[in-house]
Amino acid sequence: MNYKVMGRFISKILAVEAVFMIPAMLISVFDKEYKAFISFVLSILIIMAVSALLFVLGRKAKQRFFVKEGLACVGLSWIAISLLGCLPFYISGEIPHFIDALFEMVSGFTTTGSSILPEVEAMSRGMLYWRSFSHWLGGMGVLVFLLAVTPANGRSNRFTLHLLRAESPGPNVEKLAPRMRDTAMILYMLYMALTVMNVIFLLLGGISLFDSVCTAFGTAGTGGFGIKNDSMAGYSPYIQNVCTIFMLLFGVNFSCYYLLLLRRFKTVLKDGELRLYLGLVVASITAITINIYHMFGSIGEALHHAAFTVASIITTTGFATVDFDKWPEFSKSIIVVLMMIGACAGSTGGGFKCGRLLLLLKSIRRGIRKTLNPNKVEVIRNNGNAVNEKVISGINIYVATYFIIIFGSFLLIAVDGFSIITNFTAVLSCFNNIGPGLDQVGPTCNFGLFSDFSKIILIIDMLAGRLEIYPILILFSRDVWSFKR
Amino acid sequence: MNYKVMGRFISKILAVEAVFMIPAMLISVFDKEYKAFISFVLSILIIMAVSALLFVLGRKAKQRFFVKEGLACVGLSWIAISLLGCLPFYISGEIPHFIDALFEMVSGFTTTGSSILPEVEAMSRGMLYWRSFSHWLGGMGVLVFLLAVTPANGRSNRFTLHLLRAESPGPNVEKLAPRMRDTAMILYMLYMALTVMNVIFLLLGGISLFDSVCTAFGTAGTGGFGIKNDSMAGYSPYIQNVCTIFMLLFGVNFSCYYLLLLRRFKTVLKDGELRLYLGLVVASITAITINIYHMFGSIGEALHHAAFTVASIITTTGFATVDFDKWPEFSKSIIVVLMMIGACAGSTGGGFKCGRLLLLLKSIRRGIRKTLNPNKVEVIRNNGNAVNEKVISGINIYVATYFIIIFGSFLLIAVDGFSIITNFTAVLSCFNNIGPGLDQVGPTCNFGLFSDFSKIILIIDMLAGRLEIYPILILFSRDVWSFKR
Repeated sequence: MNYKVMGRFISKILAVEAVFMIPAMLISVFDKEYKAFISFVLSILIIMAVSALLFVLGRKAKQRFFVKEGLACVGLSWIAISLLGCLPFYISGEIPHFIDALFEMVSGFTTTGSSILPEVEAMSRGMLYWRSFSHWLGGMGVLVFLLAVTPANGRSNRFTLHLLRAESPGPNVEKLAPRMRDTAMILYMLYMALTVMNVIFLLLGGISLFDSVCTAFGTAGTGGFGIKNDSMAGYSPYIQNVCTIFMLLFGVNFSCYYLLLLRRFKTVLKDGELRLYLGLVVASITAITINIYHMFGSIGEALHHAAFTVASIITTTGFATVDFDKWPEFSKSIIVVLMMIGACAGSTGGGFKCGRLLLLLKSIRRGIRKTLNPNKVEVIRNNGNAVNEKVISGINIYVATYFIIIFGSFLLIAVDGFSIITNFTAVLSCFNNIGPGLDQVGPTCNFGLFSDFSKIILIIDMLAGRLEIYPILILFSRDVWSFKR
Repeated sequence: MNYKVMGRFISKILAVEAVFMIPAMLISVFDKEYKAFISFVLSILIIMAVSALLFVLGRKAKQRFFVKEGLACVGLSWIAISLLGCLPFYISGEIPHFIDALFEMVSGFTTTGSSILPEVEAMSRGMLYWRSFSHWLGGMGVLVFLLAVTPANGRSNRFTLHLLRAESPGPNVEKLAPRMRDTAMILYMLYMALTVMNVIFLLLGGISLFDSVCTAFGTAGTGGFGIKNDSMAGYSPYIQNVCTIFMLLFGVNFSCYYLLLLRRFKTVLKDGELRLYLGLVVASITAITINIYHMFGSIGEALHHAAFTVASIITTTGFATVDFDKWPEFSKSIIVVLMMIGACAGSTGGGFKCGRLLLLLKSIRRGIRKTLNPNKVEVIRNNGNAVNEKVISGINIYVATYFIIIFGSFLLIAVDGFSIITNFTAVLSCFNNIGPGLDQVGPTCNFGLFSDFSKIILIIDMLAGRLEIYPILILFSRDVWSFKR
């Protein structure tokens, strides 16, 4: 392993984190929340110190770099920013228990949105801002951000491709531009533009700038941390509808927006993944509306809450307008399945991803045809292009790993003795980066009930889910830690 | 499609079924249950008539045969024996609703053991015998039986291999003997020997011959239909222990017994699947015993019920000595995971199979290594032998299909509005051929509560689970029904 290069890389990531903590610090001093202010100052100093130390240790690194260093770099960077990013919560005493603070931070960066806080509104605004901002940074990816802002360097193009691949959601990353740095920049520009639009639409609904920005961060990253105890329930239907629409927009593959800018409308309209995503959204909203109609009395209101909830769950955001844990079992069953599917590849959403599901269904269909005609050779196509067999077999192994991690975590946290539904949806929710689950981790509850052991399992699940398993899984492999190549 | 050959084949299968119905008919006349007797006579006549019709239609069939005919043959044969096999229940009025009778019969042949009967003891003994016998025949497979008893025919060897493959559980069928017919015969001889031993041990416990034979049928086929309302709870601990041991024995790959007869002890001891199976059994029993200790007060009793339940669930039998739905959530979580794993390949048990799980875990480990070193070529080994890559990719597609069917069925039966746990474990239980689930389909409940629509979905799940998906799945494919080749 090339530890020096990894150290230097993580040093840069931590510097980015320290810089991004400054606005939260300023909000605290503006609010005269001096305890929070001092916590941010101390945290920034600690992060800078660790960053400097790693930078010094990483001097004279060789430029040789392999895939495993890239993957381990991504996994370790995310662990580092979470461990250090939770310091303000812990130092200020606003989250007095360290594992809780870490859980909250990981939940933020991985855009999960599961919280251990019983009273969100008890937190200072600086902390709330940092908590929501972590969604925004984690949504598109902190490494992608670093890539977008560092000067282009001819040699590192292949390495950065590995990093981008490891951090971006979905089975394969499309290069929007010949150079990876430009791709990263385009992605962040689109991301920023959409976020600003979201803030403007929220401001038009009459809520404060602070609320608008925090809500937009939570929506853009498909995170789901609210800044109110009742999530989104207290906001007006207009604000809720803005959220519904923007959640759905942030669940779309960002390359679709790039294609729209290039006026390639037909390509976007014919995109198989987008069609599957929208189809699932429409079908789920329809089924749930019919199923919950009797609870609201008007189709309009049932539709309103069904649309919000479906958008919130399929994009893995996790905001809530109503306590859907009280909905009929059929609607809850749809929600459980949507939890697993998730949004489009190349969006900020988590889950298994519609694109992967589409290719999976195609590979199953081919499997059946192959059983019927063993000698037939058939290529799987996606939007007309042949898909590399490596991608297909990668997806098939991904499914298997996905379910083994889910059921393994489910068994581990079952030791706490909560109900099967609680444990199963807690794992689904964390691993797919959603936020709320059902029963004791339903929309009106929080994750504070679990033991430290279970919280650590769920922290690993959130990270593994956000980074699509491998960057975290390989950290458990002996091969990675050997000095041999 | 070569419909004529298929017709002739199904004709033979039905003849076998009619012959096997005779003992049940004799029991009815012996018991002076004339209504049951007449129902059996009528059913046998109808089955013979259908068989004769298919035989006539299948005359002059061409000998050309492809894989798809083989698979479709297996699927259709099982549907035919179920549709006609449930006639005695329906005609006698002992199960007055046809879909219920069909559910019960499919549950029997697929060795699921889920029942729609609230009162098993209300049935006549002839019906109970037929119900339990269906487990025995379905366990090893009715086509395998036909293969074992029909005279060898040089030309048909390849076709029969396909049939055997389609009907036998597990990722690949080991040929115990050069000729498939001999393999089928060895399998049935071992099966009969073990069943007879089981009956003898049960008789030694002082229960009647009828009870012993029916219980042994349920155990041998890993089916789980009991002939008492309280399943196995009323029997003595000795009888329960005999069941525990024989359930575990019938969950082992039968080729292990063949190897034992050949005195190849080392090969058996080193078998990876057997080790995984026994390891899972021991680990689960230990964990559950500790978890339920407080409910029984003595380690001995807790161990007794934990061992019985683990054996019953992992082998997918489904007998019960206690209502494990009332156990702590941790124990229930283990049970849910064991439900999915199932027994060894090449046994009479259902589920995903330990052997498949082992290869899956190996393919995931290889996937991680490949991510680290993309150019490394690594062969997966099973008991020292390299595994064909087609088997590996087949297993990976199987996992995906497995979970898509489970969650698809879960959504469909959710329309009935029962709890998520009820629906999820009902599907798991039917698809993995277990029997009871949790909550409203727990060990003390039955499947009568579901609507006809849900029952049909569960019937399809049971068949798909028993035949390992493809022989049933392809019946929904247009390719199979076309006259083209």
